Amino acid sequence: MTAVQDQELVTPAELETRLRAIGAERYHHRHPFHRLMHEGMLTRAQLQAWALNRYYYQSVIPIKDAIILSRSEDPAFRRAWRKRIIDHDGDGTDPGGIEKWIRLAEATGLNREQVVSERGILPGVRYAVNAYFDLVSKRSFLEAVASSLTELFSRDLIALRMDRIREHYPWLSSGLAYFDARLTQAPEDVTFALAWVTENASTRAGQELAFGALRAKCDILWAQLDALYYAYVEPGWPPPGAFRPGMDNGTA
Amino acid sequence: MTAVQDQELVTPAELETRLRAIGAERYHHRHPFHRLMHEGMLTRAQLQAWALNRYYYQSVIPIKDAIILSRSEDPAFRRAWRKRIIDHDGDGTDPGGIEKWIRLAEATGLNREQVVSERGILPGVRYAVNAYFDLVSKRSFLEAVASSLTELFSRDLIALRMDRIREHYPWLSSGLAYFDARLTQAPEDVTFALAWVTENASTRAGQELAFGALRAKCDILWAQLDALYYAYVEPGWPPPGAFRPGMDNGTA
Repeated sequence: MTAVQDQELVTPAELETRLRAIGAERYHHRHPFHRLMHEGMLTRAQLQAWALNRYYYQSVIPIKDAIILSRSEDPAFRRAWRKRIIDHDGDGTDPGGIEKWIRLAEATGLNREQVVSERGILPGVRYAVNAYFDLVSKRSFLEAVASSLTELFSRDLIALRMDRIREHYPWLSSGLAYFDARLTQAPEDVTFALAWVTENASTRAGQELAFGALRAKCDILWAQLDALYYAYVEPGWPPPGAFRPGMDNGTA
Repeated sequence: MTAVQDQELVTPAELETRLRAIGAERYHHRHPFHRLMHEGMLTRAQLQAWALNRYYYQSVIPIKDAIILSRSEDPAFRRAWRKRIIDHDGDGTDPGGIEKWIRLAEATGLNREQVVSERGILPGVRYAVNAYFDLVSKRSFLEAVASSLTELFSRDLIALRMDRIREHYPWLSSGLAYFDARLTQAPEDVTFALAWVTENASTRAGQELAFGALRAKCDILWAQLDALYYAYVEPGWPPPGAFRPGMDNGTA
């Protein structure tokens, strides 16, 4: 058997094909929670739980991107990457992605204070999101960048989601500004990241690291939905201290 | 309303009462996965998934305890705490807790190589366990020590479990050496830790930190069982790459 390092570098086209195959198997578009969402089978309470919990993920994206930015010694890379921070934090005038996500959560019927307090976030969601910090800070820089390549798959998922939300949950249509922005931001971001990974994964071992990082990121997204599905869909017992629809959630 | 810092210190007896109340609400003896286990409702495959996944938790306990030990400037504390590392790693002759857990996993029908490879561990379990590292390394030393106080509750759970395993899963009875040892180790350990926390949580704010750390540790244990329940009990889809009973699990 040949060690991975001795195997041939795959071509850029083949690299992209293999990355896309990972998404086809592991990206969270396949998760039952999203499937139910897109079939119109989720209740408003379940969509609240989703919006509340995913807020934690959204809220740390600029921090995650700042960690990646902090690890680059290349001003050109840093200039390209900082766009992501601006996209999510805004410029102080136009709302960024975090603010838009709060508005989506408000459209589900949650109030802003409840969302930004992060009370009632599922521990499983918190742990999965925090694992993203570990990934971008402790693994190689190549893997940190490659973990963003889930954006290869996000545009299609977002387009489908917007369509299905308007169809099945029209009362939520007013909250779609976040996704609307991501329709153009994500493809821009991933064009840069894919080109960078293609150029910098200059050995077969490096390419394998990129595949592994993308799998790890897919796991992180998937685990968040696992926690949601388990607590709020079936069989339905949020752990002690987690968000309970319709109740004030003052628990620490 | 009075700020926590201004409130009175609770007595040692009341401190223990409040710690035990947290366990009554949040310790994983209440988790549906354990309830099913103790009612004899789990299959061999589900017990395999439990043994395999919890191996990851068992395998990092000495590392977690070494982090705590590394943070103490008190030789007496360090001498007391190192017992935990010996209990789990063994002395090279008599097996420690990790080895005993492997034998429990073998008694479920898994093979040793599969267990120690950590292939197929649920990402949600991995993230929860890794959150324990964050707790003991990033929070205050008092919180790191207080997080061990789940041992206040473990003896009763283990005694019940051993009884129910012998009743419902007699084929697993040969694998109980781990729990047998914990029946005496855990009470010894928690006697020291509770006395230490009682003495060192010398302000009301410190006592609240200890309560919070115990809640956080309960969340970590609970989330591991959430991941197991979701993947292997109901509705039963392990995420891509996770352990599937009866199949070779070569996935990265």
